[in-house]
Amino acid sequence: MTDEPPPTDDPIRPELRRAPSVVLVNTGDGKGKSTAAFGVMLRALARGWNVAVCQFVKSGDWKVGEEKLGRELGVTWHALGDGFTWDSNDLEADRARAAEAWAVASGIIAAGEHHVVVLDELTYLCNWSWLDTKDVVDAVTNRPAHVNIVVTGRDAPAGLIDVADTVTEMRHVKHAYDEGVRAMRGIDY
Amino acid sequence: MTDEPPPTDDPIRPELRRAPSVVLVNTGDGKGKSTAAFGVMLRALARGWNVAVCQFVKSGDWKVGEEKLGRELGVTWHALGDGFTWDSNDLEADRARAAEAWAVASGIIAAGEHHVVVLDELTYLCNWSWLDTKDVVDAVTNRPAHVNIVVTGRDAPAGLIDVADTVTEMRHVKHAYDEGVRAMRGIDY
Repeated sequence: MTDEPPPTDDPIRPELRRAPSVVLVNTGDGKGKSTAAFGVMLRALARGWNVAVCQFVKSGDWKVGEEKLGRELGVTWHALGDGFTWDSNDLEADRARAAEAWAVASGIIAAGEHHVVVLDELTYLCNWSWLDTKDVVDAVTNRPAHVNIVVTGRDAPAGLIDVADTVTEMRHVKHAYDEGVRAMRGIDY
Repeated sequence: MTDEPPPTDDPIRPELRRAPSVVLVNTGDGKGKSTAAFGVMLRALARGWNVAVCQFVKSGDWKVGEEKLGRELGVTWHALGDGFTWDSNDLEADRARAAEAWAVASGIIAAGEHHVVVLDELTYLCNWSWLDTKDVVDAVTNRPAHVNIVVTGRDAPAGLIDVADTVTEMRHVKHAYDEGVRAMRGIDY
């Protein structure tokens, strides 16, 4: 069938240049956006890097697994989405809370103390006009050269895709929920 | 913009039933297939579950980060793809090696000692006719009820998609390699 090696997703070819850091965006309506970000977190930890995770949507019981293990492994973990009202009548309150949350995250990026900063579910704040995409793009563009950024969330705004190095759309093909199966601790969260 | 909470990817709605286990498939030509599988591994470990990872394609220097940290965290790790020839003139040798590798993996599934079994890059073996997809489908279908399976790789065969609960296509939108940037340790591997 083949006399080629498999289509590795991660070739190191000698003609490729080294980038001091990259910006990854995991978007789309499918599973795996945050999960893949946590996979990157794991790689970075394995390399001995400092990692920060900023969660922009209240997770409730979700992501307790990642957070627990992440903290145990030394990840700086900020749950920044807890104060949002999700109430269209209180847009100003949500905008103020989003500005506060973004101040924390952009401060972490600018400080340069973490080699990887995960901005989990940040896209929703841009898409709901709680946050100006331009502020995000500026912070990413002007980040310290060694700081890698991973952004997750549906419908990543065009400005963010433009400055990203790698963008993957996680596309929903089939989901257990379609068949009435609930999420499972240890697998989905 | 909204008075709905965000479109969480993982609702627990009371009307949904509990499944004893699920089968996840991460396919497509984009990044994040294995990475998301390792994110699931992390969740399972956070829950205190036993996890096994079977890698079906020789990783060389790849995935050293996951393997190192995975082993440290107690994951049973099998690099099963080391013996393949990638030589179309030696199809029989590759088929024999694939059968051996599959015997290990299917034995782990059937033994039921691991709550999560990751079959990393298994799809290639099916697509290259090194392995009969039916054997994989049978092992997955007849697995112990508590064993969750995660399969990764491009072009997941239809038979596997049929028995999966959740299938995500990681679609390549944009990649650093397109711009001549090489893979980075700590991010890509």
